[in-house]
Amino acid sequence: MPSRLDNDLMLRALLREPVERTPVWMMRQAGRYLPEYREVRARAGDFMTLCTTPEYACEVTLQPLDRFPLDAAILFSDILTIPDAMGLGLSFVHGEGPQFERPVRDARSIQRLGVPDPEDDLGYVMDAVRLIRSELDGRVPLIGFAGSPWTLATYMVEGGSSRTFSRIKALRYEDPVALHMLLTVLAESVAAYLKAQIEAGAQIVQIFDTWGGVLTPSDYREFSLDYMTHIIEALPESNDGRPVPVILFTKGGGAWLETMVGSGADCLGLDWTVDIGDARDRVGDRVALQGNLDPAALLAHPEHIREAVAGVLASFGQGSGHVFNLGHGITPEVPPEHAAAMIEAVHALSPSYHEGS
Amino acid sequence: MPSRLDNDLMLRALLREPVERTPVWMMRQAGRYLPEYREVRARAGDFMTLCTTPEYACEVTLQPLDRFPLDAAILFSDILTIPDAMGLGLSFVHGEGPQFERPVRDARSIQRLGVPDPEDDLGYVMDAVRLIRSELDGRVPLIGFAGSPWTLATYMVEGGSSRTFSRIKALRYEDPVALHMLLTVLAESVAAYLKAQIEAGAQIVQIFDTWGGVLTPSDYREFSLDYMTHIIEALPESNDGRPVPVILFTKGGGAWLETMVGSGADCLGLDWTVDIGDARDRVGDRVALQGNLDPAALLAHPEHIREAVAGVLASFGQGSGHVFNLGHGITPEVPPEHAAAMIEAVHALSPSYHEGS
Repeated sequence: MPSRLDNDLMLRALLREPVERTPVWMMRQAGRYLPEYREVRARAGDFMTLCTTPEYACEVTLQPLDRFPLDAAILFSDILTIPDAMGLGLSFVHGEGPQFERPVRDARSIQRLGVPDPEDDLGYVMDAVRLIRSELDGRVPLIGFAGSPWTLATYMVEGGSSRTFSRIKALRYEDPVALHMLLTVLAESVAAYLKAQIEAGAQIVQIFDTWGGVLTPSDYREFSLDYMTHIIEALPESNDGRPVPVILFTKGGGAWLETMVGSGADCLGLDWTVDIGDARDRVGDRVALQGNLDPAALLAHPEHIREAVAGVLASFGQGSGHVFNLGHGITPEVPPEHAAAMIEAVHALSPSYHEGS
Repeated sequence: MPSRLDNDLMLRALLREPVERTPVWMMRQAGRYLPEYREVRARAGDFMTLCTTPEYACEVTLQPLDRFPLDAAILFSDILTIPDAMGLGLSFVHGEGPQFERPVRDARSIQRLGVPDPEDDLGYVMDAVRLIRSELDGRVPLIGFAGSPWTLATYMVEGGSSRTFSRIKALRYEDPVALHMLLTVLAESVAAYLKAQIEAGAQIVQIFDTWGGVLTPSDYREFSLDYMTHIIEALPESNDGRPVPVILFTKGGGAWLETMVGSGADCLGLDWTVDIGDARDRVGDRVALQGNLDPAALLAHPEHIREAVAGVLASFGQGSGHVFNLGHGITPEVPPEHAAAMIEAVHALSPSYHEGS
């Protein structure tokens, strides 16, 4: 018998089963826009300490749930834990984002990379998942996550964030075999990592393909989507007596939804540059959709936020298969009351789209 | 009788008339990847002096034509000349890009903005156009250009470059009337500016909508495309006895091509995230297409560049209506011989797509 789950709206929506209202969560909901998060972050000292200390990770994961009636928790962590466990030496430089001390740039350094053991090398993540599940106590499901192989590779080759992706693109043109080697070891690592998160208690997983959208259409298939498809194939379809749905989110990938449907994901995440109603027409009933309010809409007055939420709900239309979310992470300058206004609007306005279901 | 034009391939391709081979030019072809450009830039001292001194602007405009068999020249200038002429105080900070001393952030500062007089306030641009036309002496056509109202507005409100566009998006949600006021004065300014460039001798014009792709689909129509459409309506269809084609380039706008067709543009620019063959199927014979090699492909060895060029040409397929270009500006680290390899490949491989035409 599966463990207790008081609110399974999100699971049902992901599986396109009837729901009473549209479930809602926010990417980066445990983040800098919350004063209580900034307080813990200051206490921890730095960002990696937050990630690697299960008690801190658990505390900040639960903060937004104590404030807002959200329908899911998402593990507090970072997509770059895997390359860090591979030995690249991750640090976060204030104002400059992530940096790797030992980036990989050629076939030789790629060949040296091994697949991290999730329980040995990333045990702090699995401990956090277990602790969060225990503290959540069945309130809402817990989302686990990982970066896509392509997205992780961009950071590993560039050495950090990039605007032009010139190093990894040079590698793609100069030595595509080496890049495929890198993506292969990353796909194995991500699959093992997500499997372990599921075994530790993650009830939904999301693959963040933050940089898939910088590729050409055929390179997206070859260097990003194919690897995510392999990962999804490797994941267990159920755990603890319940299906474990997979969400695939390629930022900037709105033009390629038809192709992404073939990945085996249960749900596709949308950024704000597509109309969710058009997206629904294009994917039909083959997958659920998650999104897609422009995070910048949360800078508006609450009455305008409500209008913007109404627009997304109306565009998706009647029936299940929609998980309300932002089209990207919530930004630090958003007042928490504005996030509250969005969530309230979903609660208030979405039931009429599920009547008779 | 129109003035002499030895090479009108680009004009014919833009009008979808038969050509012997696909014309080719590169966005930012007069730029930092060329040592002779860097030499002039060093001589001029700073970037704005290059733009505001017609002799320098002319010299660097012609440099890539002396090196490569390109089918068009593009005026050397910057899209931010208009806001500078409006009094915002433009400067280029090394490594940080453009900055405005006096950004506009509210209705009051927007109301104070006037439409710059192209010959009085931007006379240096018109002088550069006249000088370049005279020095070009009919070799190839000269492309004039401007930023789109939305794109200019992003810099004017943010105060410079942005990753999140949070200030202009806050304005869009908080005071859309003020934003429309700003876009209206910019649309008038851009129309007057492009008209003056055409009268001074620009034979083609391109509107750079660099940041239209960060909008939602409906906001793109309301805050970017509508204003570009008004500008195109205001431009003369011909000058000096020849049509003056208009190219509209919205980076990240590949999903919206069907809507952009209604703008009245003769040609749509494509970035590298769309397949140009798919794009052609979608727009039919209503417009020509420009693009769309990934600029990063120029980091590869010349033999791979040739393959990449072959891919774009094959994807577009038989017939006219294609102007070969990169999907965005050429980047500073590209060796000039790699640009040469791309251009040679277009010359060598494209004639077979125009046989019998």
